[in-house]
Amino acid sequence: MSQAAQAISADSEFDRDTSVSLRAPGVYDADLSEGWAILSAVNGGYLLAIVARALRDALPHPDPFTVTAHYLTPSKPGPAVVRTETVRTGRSLATGQASLFQYEPDGTEVERVRVMAAYGSLDSLGDDVRTLVKPPVLPPPERCLGTEDGPAAFPDDSGFSRRVTVRLDPATAGWAIGAPSGKGEMRGWFSLADGREPDPLSLLLTVDAFPPTAFDLGLKGWTPTVELTTHIRGLPAPGPLRVFVTTRNLAGGYLEEDADVWDSADRLVAQARQLARAPRETRVPGAR
Amino acid sequence: MSQAAQAISADSEFDRDTSVSLRAPGVYDADLSEGWAILSAVNGGYLLAIVARALRDALPHPDPFTVTAHYLTPSKPGPAVVRTETVRTGRSLATGQASLFQYEPDGTEVERVRVMAAYGSLDSLGDDVRTLVKPPVLPPPERCLGTEDGPAAFPDDSGFSRRVTVRLDPATAGWAIGAPSGKGEMRGWFSLADGREPDPLSLLLTVDAFPPTAFDLGLKGWTPTVELTTHIRGLPAPGPLRVFVTTRNLAGGYLEEDADVWDSADRLVAQARQLARAPRETRVPGAR
Repeated sequence: MSQAAQAISADSEFDRDTSVSLRAPGVYDADLSEGWAILSAVNGGYLLAIVARALRDALPHPDPFTVTAHYLTPSKPGPAVVRTETVRTGRSLATGQASLFQYEPDGTEVERVRVMAAYGSLDSLGDDVRTLVKPPVLPPPERCLGTEDGPAAFPDDSGFSRRVTVRLDPATAGWAIGAPSGKGEMRGWFSLADGREPDPLSLLLTVDAFPPTAFDLGLKGWTPTVELTTHIRGLPAPGPLRVFVTTRNLAGGYLEEDADVWDSADRLVAQARQLARAPRETRVPGAR
Repeated sequence: MSQAAQAISADSEFDRDTSVSLRAPGVYDADLSEGWAILSAVNGGYLLAIVARALRDALPHPDPFTVTAHYLTPSKPGPAVVRTETVRTGRSLATGQASLFQYEPDGTEVERVRVMAAYGSLDSLGDDVRTLVKPPVLPPPERCLGTEDGPAAFPDDSGFSRRVTVRLDPATAGWAIGAPSGKGEMRGWFSLADGREPDPLSLLLTVDAFPPTAFDLGLKGWTPTVELTTHIRGLPAPGPLRVFVTTRNLAGGYLEEDADVWDSADRLVAQARQLARAPRETRVPGAR
């Protein structure tokens, strides 16, 4: 890690709260902060950043290229342990696996999330960027809506909503006043509230930080993630990120969410897809 | 499995060549058929169908909902063993992991592919389908192009291309005569050549059966898959499938391929995304 990155790290709540400490080869202690919970559940992207930080230490390459997480049981604030396995080490890519466990009162470990990932060096990839799509148009941040603008963009005044700055395009925020667009979209600006600039680890948080697209479909309630895969496609430039989340297929009680993340230099830096259970209820929070 | 499905199975080359036999609890022997190779490499979707069949036997639910594969080393025709682990068993979903190994001359096992998956019962999901997108328009099969229509749609007269019937939309087949569209798309019809109807296992083959979208970007050469995640979203109706593969982001030597598979009843039955290495060369096979 560069000295500059370390200097940023010491000041960042995100970096402090995702830190891991080596207990034994491949085994890392962590502490899930209640600061990143929504209601009583620890945010899935925050969990992923912790596991990815452990894998970054365990593997010979620094950056997550593709990370798949299966969410097994709900995580709670408190101590955790990440156990990593180096599956394969190659010249340009290394494959790893990791599980985050928490403890029962008797000390038994319970697996919360299992992750499979390939790491490489984004810095070494060079500049042959031929992205075929352009970032969709988004109103400037001051014309977008945050939690302070009336009906909560998040379902509660959670620790999570104080640590991330999400400003929603008004076109995808109608659900907050009972008028969802029905298109299954969430678009907006993202940055960490502590001012830390984005990097591959924080992008893993960004892709799962927006309100569920189900709200924009007129559904309310929890949308638990079954599986989330994120491709980190470039080192993000400093500055706010633009996030575009869409759902195209809601069927049989499940839906996919596709999240594209664009940096301030108009690079598509992350592409994520998750399979989630659709909420059972049909009214959005805040709707009268 | 229903009697009808068993009856189909006995007649199908796909079913015979993806069969697995229980060696010990959770451990399955398989044989990779050279009939599903392209050049000397066994097709990744075929491998995935074998691993998914082992997991279907090992887990308490029958259908893959989400399957992620990391391809570690190239597979060759010949014997293999699939070792499965039941990670978590729930009422509606079970999570499993599996690795397919082959053997060195001295009997050492070498891991080829590692898979993490969640299985459920597609049959139990009910009919609340609210797909927000429509299947893109495709010319009828007789106006699409197969391997018999001049320049090979596949890079060789492989076993694979005789076992799947792929008919490409002419708009995405220009690369075969040196005129790629530059859009990064492959569209066409898919069916198994032996007439076996689609099911969730064969869909895992379908999502990786088309020529690489890189060809339509004017690139030639191998596009090795790093990671492939497939969501199976419904039981496919009998009949030919329509497959739409797109690449939106080629950067730093990597690209994603998104594959949507629609069944004959206009249901979006599979959504897949892979991260692959882009080919190094810039001329497509067949271009003069």
